[in-house]
Amino acid sequence: MDVYECIFARRDTRHFTDELVPDEVIERALRAAHGAPSVGLSEPWRFVIVKSQQVKDDIYNLFCASRSQAEGQIHDAERLALHHSLKLEAIRETPLGIAVFCAPPPATEYTIGVVGTRETLAWSCACAIQNMWLALTAEGFGAGWVSILNYPEAKKVFDVPAAWELLGYFCVGRPATDYDGKPMLESHGWKQRSAGPQILIR
Amino acid sequence: MDVYECIFARRDTRHFTDELVPDEVIERALRAAHGAPSVGLSEPWRFVIVKSQQVKDDIYNLFCASRSQAEGQIHDAERLALHHSLKLEAIRETPLGIAVFCAPPPATEYTIGVVGTRETLAWSCACAIQNMWLALTAEGFGAGWVSILNYPEAKKVFDVPAAWELLGYFCVGRPATDYDGKPMLESHGWKQRSAGPQILIR
Repeated sequence: MDVYECIFARRDTRHFTDELVPDEVIERALRAAHGAPSVGLSEPWRFVIVKSQQVKDDIYNLFCASRSQAEGQIHDAERLALHHSLKLEAIRETPLGIAVFCAPPPATEYTIGVVGTRETLAWSCACAIQNMWLALTAEGFGAGWVSILNYPEAKKVFDVPAAWELLGYFCVGRPATDYDGKPMLESHGWKQRSAGPQILIR
Repeated sequence: MDVYECIFARRDTRHFTDELVPDEVIERALRAAHGAPSVGLSEPWRFVIVKSQQVKDDIYNLFCASRSQAEGQIHDAERLALHHSLKLEAIRETPLGIAVFCAPPPATEYTIGVVGTRETLAWSCACAIQNMWLALTAEGFGAGWVSILNYPEAKKVFDVPAAWELLGYFCVGRPATDYDGKPMLESHGWKQRSAGPQILIR
């Protein structure tokens, strides 16, 4: 698939069919992720493939708690009702999930490019996520990024090393819709995209 | 260009020809960036296109200071010499630079998906960066991410709103080499890529 076509076809998907995701698709998607740029060639990304229904249920319960917490911040009744009607995850019904973490190299180990900010490590992982997402799109599959979670609690569910930082949980499967080629939040009337990027010249 | 081909051809480039970058290329690259996923459809990315030689010189001086600071952490003489020989920027000689910022929405404005962590805003910008980089690659151009900078000082040089967070400065131009299809740090003997991504199953 052409790279521009893929970039604009990629959606944050919450509605999936029950089709399984072939192992080769996940393998190609994670290999694409591994082809991302990383600060000082640190390759700090780590992937946890989630197949256990218990783990999915635990993450889903954390999602529900965080959604309720977030909804406490919406004071307009109409917006609250709309928010509550939005499907913001597909944790239990997608055949698999992929949790993405950043494993920072030890501070005692010299890494090129982190002198300005060590956030560059997590940003490298976000670039890997974008590659993974584009690859899934090219394969006819898709993903939805779930960030409505208590991050420290979610990390415990995945049982990973203490130093790892969670970036998000991705519901992965075959999209049941492309939301008419728009972001779901636009297609469901929550928010409009802007016309184009904001640019300054110096 | 095929998306997989583009993902694996993309390089963190430090060596460029003196060819100018057509405006349409930058326009398509930033439109691709704007097609990235963003938490709650916040589209927090902002782009500063740098053409002024004064701004480039100021950023280059900040780079030199941060590189010296970083080199104070390398205690092995051979590694230090190798590090010092690496070209880690192309700030002054590329026809243009693009500084990428994250402009967080006001905390008083409800944004879907930031309840777990507001870092999701910067991660959205990193996804936009990856799209921009892939688009430049597909156009036959390239970029190098400069993060060896004092971030607060660099932000002052660009004269942007106080709330904006700098992610990095990108040197943009026509690559003079593809480093034999490897990361430059591998091609120049600093560090090897790993064989593949690290994956856990849960």
